[in-house]
Amino acid sequence: MERQFSADVWTKWDRFYRANFLNSLSGFKSASLIGTISESGIPNLAIFSNIVHLGADPALIGFVNRPLAAAPDTIANIQATGVYTINHIQEAFYQKAHQTSAKYPAEINEFTAVGLTEQYREGIQAPFVQESKIQYSLSLKEIIPIRWNNTFFVIGAVEQVFLDEALIDEDGFIDLHTAGSLASCGLDAYYTVSPLDRLAYAKP
Amino acid sequence: MERQFSADVWTKWDRFYRANFLNSLSGFKSASLIGTISESGIPNLAIFSNIVHLGADPALIGFVNRPLAAAPDTIANIQATGVYTINHIQEAFYQKAHQTSAKYPAEINEFTAVGLTEQYREGIQAPFVQESKIQYSLSLKEIIPIRWNNTFFVIGAVEQVFLDEALIDEDGFIDLHTAGSLASCGLDAYYTVSPLDRLAYAKP
Repeated sequence: MERQFSADVWTKWDRFYRANFLNSLSGFKSASLIGTISESGIPNLAIFSNIVHLGADPALIGFVNRPLAAAPDTIANIQATGVYTINHIQEAFYQKAHQTSAKYPAEINEFTAVGLTEQYREGIQAPFVQESKIQYSLSLKEIIPIRWNNTFFVIGAVEQVFLDEALIDEDGFIDLHTAGSLASCGLDAYYTVSPLDRLAYAKP
Repeated sequence: MERQFSADVWTKWDRFYRANFLNSLSGFKSASLIGTISESGIPNLAIFSNIVHLGADPALIGFVNRPLAAAPDTIANIQATGVYTINHIQEAFYQKAHQTSAKYPAEINEFTAVGLTEQYREGIQAPFVQESKIQYSLSLKEIIPIRWNNTFFVIGAVEQVFLDEALIDEDGFIDLHTAGSLASCGLDAYYTVSPLDRLAYAKP
């Protein structure tokens, strides 16, 4: 039966119940790991799902970073070095990827802690996730503080993309289904996907 | 075989090939319709995929609006009225949803043009999509212009949520798979999802 919910209802809910409800409300998301490194050389790896495409020319991608009290390391490293990597999550390692969401101290290398492999590529300071089949690096353009809840909208320029060329369809579309990239929802749910359709460019 | 791509490669590509590649790179997304209405009462409906969860307390969701030259109506209506609806897309009507991406003149009602049904709810000026099983309304908090490419990051407070209560799991998680909500990728690809796993809150 249809029900209506509003803030006067969910502000009274237990915070985990509320977080699950509101995190899943906005729909399916990317399932990605962001790799960074501190100025002193400590690698960091953290899972992110709130990632958006901002534009193709120039190539820009944005992501949401939680408040500093909850998630300080990724954004501090990006500010310090100006570079980060985003790595798609596939079924073979989603549990390890999820484990990066634990609150490890800044001096812990999450790659080691969760059992994923750091991969360094020529000219790129930040580590990639070797297990990931779709990897790209970005340079920081801007960090926009969101005044309503102390989150941050982080904008980066896509610099280098690494993937198997067989995954690219003849019109440039990357076949994430064949790559095995997962979708995510809420704080802890992972989904495999099945292609339903690709539609033509719509005209009135 | 793995290949590396960078801006010096993709800036030379045909713009549609480049758009397909870079739009799909960032992973799976929400598949949603945003409903608005102009001050003079003309409804507008447009498909959006770049939607992020910003926070649960207060409940905030952000979306990316393309430059005004490409997508003027949704953002103009939100600025004028301060209210909009987001409606998940399900398999039964994804083709109609996609058709809203066509460039209709401002005076055209996309609901009528594509064959979806306007639904008005008490106290909410903007129209919902009656066919959608998960609907929510938002009030505008802030429109942040993105200076790098003239897009906008639009932040709204979630006001009212409408869904079948049977879709809510015992911990508050909304079961989008049972609802039939689709995932999207790139400019024109739609996916059904299959639950892989929900994982426990991670601790070091």
